[in-house]
Amino acid sequence: MADTPPLFKTITIVGPGLIGSSILRRARQTDTIAQKLIAADCQEAVLHRVTALNIADETTTDLIAAAAQSDLVILCIPTGAIRAVAATILPHMKPGSILSDVASVRSNLGPEIHALLPEGVSYVPAHPMAGTEYSGPDAGFATLFEDRWTLLIPPPGTAPEAIALMEAFWHRCGARTRQMTDQYHDQVCAIVSHLPHLLAFTICNTADRLSADLQTDVLEYAASGFRDFTRIAASDPIMWRDIFLTNKDVLLATFKRFEEDAHRMVKAIQEDDSEAIMQNLQRGRHIRRGLMPEPQN
Amino acid sequence: MADTPPLFKTITIVGPGLIGSSILRRARQTDTIAQKLIAADCQEAVLHRVTALNIADETTTDLIAAAAQSDLVILCIPTGAIRAVAATILPHMKPGSILSDVASVRSNLGPEIHALLPEGVSYVPAHPMAGTEYSGPDAGFATLFEDRWTLLIPPPGTAPEAIALMEAFWHRCGARTRQMTDQYHDQVCAIVSHLPHLLAFTICNTADRLSADLQTDVLEYAASGFRDFTRIAASDPIMWRDIFLTNKDVLLATFKRFEEDAHRMVKAIQEDDSEAIMQNLQRGRHIRRGLMPEPQN
Repeated sequence: MADTPPLFKTITIVGPGLIGSSILRRARQTDTIAQKLIAADCQEAVLHRVTALNIADETTTDLIAAAAQSDLVILCIPTGAIRAVAATILPHMKPGSILSDVASVRSNLGPEIHALLPEGVSYVPAHPMAGTEYSGPDAGFATLFEDRWTLLIPPPGTAPEAIALMEAFWHRCGARTRQMTDQYHDQVCAIVSHLPHLLAFTICNTADRLSADLQTDVLEYAASGFRDFTRIAASDPIMWRDIFLTNKDVLLATFKRFEEDAHRMVKAIQEDDSEAIMQNLQRGRHIRRGLMPEPQN
Repeated sequence: MADTPPLFKTITIVGPGLIGSSILRRARQTDTIAQKLIAADCQEAVLHRVTALNIADETTTDLIAAAAQSDLVILCIPTGAIRAVAATILPHMKPGSILSDVASVRSNLGPEIHALLPEGVSYVPAHPMAGTEYSGPDAGFATLFEDRWTLLIPPPGTAPEAIALMEAFWHRCGARTRQMTDQYHDQVCAIVSHLPHLLAFTICNTADRLSADLQTDVLEYAASGFRDFTRIAASDPIMWRDIFLTNKDVLLATFKRFEEDAHRMVKAIQEDDSEAIMQNLQRGRHIRRGLMPEPQN
């Protein structure tokens, strides 16, 4: 695509962590995303890593100056900090520019930030459904979004050109995109991401208490099943606290449904109801097969 | 180790599935485990795959004849079938030979099978803490046990030479070994394997019900967290039904502890108790770091 012009002249990534630095790496690898890449962060140490990794053209702690010269600003910061940072930089953004974020929960962010927009500035948040348990500028990689969904959640009334531009941006990052409402987004994420994390963090605590009781480290014997859980539970705690609190109502309602299902399974085991157990087990297996093709036969 | 003599003359693997066929592959790859490998199964189709894969010297549906000529018989069959098969073949096993199994739950298997042993035959069950979500002779691989724990659970009074021989066997399969009591084994496995599987199967059911309610497939958007869960939930349902029923008491007690911890987390979220949430999250992260070294700073 040597002849494809870049989508943006100047992009600022605020918070070049796992997601932010992966966007920078991807944009560095291709000429079709932006001419100039700015990494902005309030921590000098983070910016030093970005410079050492050579994944941005410019680094700065001056978010306002960076935002003022950018055609696209993406906030890749904890969900709890987005509203305040958006309120700080929005008055300085130029007409025709786009503000975005990669928040894992919408709640009321959409309408709240929409209300702050200066004339001619669009807000097109997008949530890439990708991640690892690592964080910081060193954790990113250019293919993080490859073949993953990025969910676009523009507030009602957003300019269609701005939405189309952000769709093109994420396609060039390797992702598939889908537009949805804030409410639908938060329900989908509660079941496919937030609840699994809540359970994973919890089982680590249970294992820890049990180890203390048995005066031995049961985790030494962790089999593959448990390792998958602890991988999830190793994720950034501040990010997950913000997610749990911001999506509280949907998450707790989803937990309640999960608990009902768990009780049904526990009851079947308690009562030696072999048939009910098999029904529950086979549904899980069936769902998995729908998600991924079998690697053999 | 070209000069190391093989540990056994003839080994029979009953049930050459994921675990059994991995043992066969490993023994095929090295001359230090056995001179002759027999694969026994009640299903001809399974034996045809073993022959096609060329991972045994002989295949048979005659378990008794195979056991009668073997120095070691390992039952790699569902936990619920072990007692009956052991009772069938034990009277035909020769003095000095060893019976083993790879059951994921002990419960009363140890004392029950110990009581059936003919003079001179030893029972040294061993549970390799390794596996994937796939099953059958095609699913195995020679390195499945590499650097994994294999837990030995010989009944009290077992001949020390037989235990030492089985330890050597598993070391040559690549595993580390540890001896423990039946009760300790079942508690360790309840937390590191059985409970994670119960939760994974359950969350797949919850997602399924939710998809039906929303009239859409929320699982289309599965992020990495959920994929780890569904990988677990894709495991063989018959095997897991047997495990849940055989380890019922310990599993349900462990679930109860998990549920208490989950309620503590839910309460912290409900009450916006940021500090309590962080405490729970950081413990999970800490445990994970204890399990695996960080790949990056």
